Amino acid sequence: MSARILVNGLEARTVPADDRGLAYGDGLFETLALREGGVRFVEAHLARLARGCARLAIPMPDGGLLRTQLAAVSDGVAHGVVKIVLTRGPGPRGYAPPASPEPTLIVSCHPGEPRSGIAAPLRVRDCATPVASSPALAGLKTLNRLEQVLARAEWRDPAIGEGLMRDEAGWYAGGTASNLFVVRDGTLLTPGLGRRGVRGIMRDAVLAASARLGIASAEADLGRADLDGATEMFLTSALIGIAPVGEFDGRRLATGPVTRRLRAELALAGVGECAAPL
Amino acid sequence: MSARILVNGLEARTVPADDRGLAYGDGLFETLALREGGVRFVEAHLARLARGCARLAIPMPDGGLLRTQLAAVSDGVAHGVVKIVLTRGPGPRGYAPPASPEPTLIVSCHPGEPRSGIAAPLRVRDCATPVASSPALAGLKTLNRLEQVLARAEWRDPAIGEGLMRDEAGWYAGGTASNLFVVRDGTLLTPGLGRRGVRGIMRDAVLAASARLGIASAEADLGRADLDGATEMFLTSALIGIAPVGEFDGRRLATGPVTRRLRAELALAGVGECAAPL
Repeated sequence: MSARILVNGLEARTVPADDRGLAYGDGLFETLALREGGVRFVEAHLARLARGCARLAIPMPDGGLLRTQLAAVSDGVAHGVVKIVLTRGPGPRGYAPPASPEPTLIVSCHPGEPRSGIAAPLRVRDCATPVASSPALAGLKTLNRLEQVLARAEWRDPAIGEGLMRDEAGWYAGGTASNLFVVRDGTLLTPGLGRRGVRGIMRDAVLAASARLGIASAEADLGRADLDGATEMFLTSALIGIAPVGEFDGRRLATGPVTRRLRAELALAGVGECAAPL
Repeated sequence: MSARILVNGLEARTVPADDRGLAYGDGLFETLALREGGVRFVEAHLARLARGCARLAIPMPDGGLLRTQLAAVSDGVAHGVVKIVLTRGPGPRGYAPPASPEPTLIVSCHPGEPRSGIAAPLRVRDCATPVASSPALAGLKTLNRLEQVLARAEWRDPAIGEGLMRDEAGWYAGGTASNLFVVRDGTLLTPGLGRRGVRGIMRDAVLAASARLGIASAEADLGRADLDGATEMFLTSALIGIAPVGEFDGRRLATGPVTRRLRAELALAGVGECAAPL
């Protein structure tokens, strides 16, 4: 473990064994890109963490304290990933949350980490592991991620950049660690988040960029036929920016005009991956 | 924290901060009743843990080693709860599981713990938090339990013994920490486990007992009308045995003949709670 880790503000390598994050996945996390010494989209990540805390009734840490820890943990590191884990903290056995939780805050820096080995344009496949329909947790980046683990375990071929997950009804939720966008008839479509999926920071940025550019966009139920009929397809995450899909389940796709315009727009917003040649 | 804890066989209070159990809920757990110095239904719990390991591709610890640790952690303790947590162990950031995981095994003893404050017959209510439909994880006792936490957080009235959870379609999954049984037209019914719920050790024991006693039983989709029409209702768990529901959402229920016969049968099988007067 070469990461630098702060647990409740102190350098540490461990957490209490009775932490509810471990016992029940009772918490949230954020994965932030560290680029050229700066943590990207900090405000958006902290805003999402605060929304998650509100829904789970976990006290949100002070924003200034979080920013201080993000700076401390990434001090002197040029590139990598900074991760925030926030749990409801320690507690006795049993699901009932403590009346006055004392959250555990874990801020870690993973220097120089390759961007999950993902190179765009991506080769993408369908996963067999279905994603749950979970209205209670939909949209949140909770520590309950076992389905994503099982889906990601379906392939080890490093040439496969990402796998897509569908719910029982066959509607796509997105990639195991990314949001999905397709272009059909000139409209940008992405799965809604009412039942499954995570409201990604880069997803929000793409939807905002499409509005600025006058590109029509909508949330939609997307099934296999929608993907097979798509003229463009890309995945997004805080770490990869906008990554065009070059091949989906054997079908080749070109990087089309909508994807290129959005990449150019996000490159201007500071997403370096979107400035890289394809 | 007054529990005695073994982490990978050594007395400890902490686990590594990069454990995948904490990061993703990537693991399983078992909750065993410690009664009169003995851990109850050990073989059934270890068999379920092994089944879960097989489905999640987590190496199952040696059974002898597990039994030794269960004995060590509960040595000299008469009553309480023994908990096993097994995670995929530490690993780098990212969902992809390590090719050769080194699982983390946490065995803890919680002496003298009251049985969740539950006194039978139970007062039971419906929870508003829906349970996910998750074919990938259904039946397993994984560390992904945030929905149960949110459901259990819906009430603090200690007179309420348990809350029932339904999926989006309105079918009951069971209690937040228990399996649900109802009797309708003389038949014992319990929710199936294909999409949600946990295959409880006491649930298995009840189904086996009903077969021995010649009581017709079946898995079924159970909706609110089925519960409103039930003549008997009870909840089961490793810690409570068979707990009759005395009141469901305001309606009083008597402890009927099927419940009484099953309790008598399980009392013979060593479930002391089933011998207690109601």
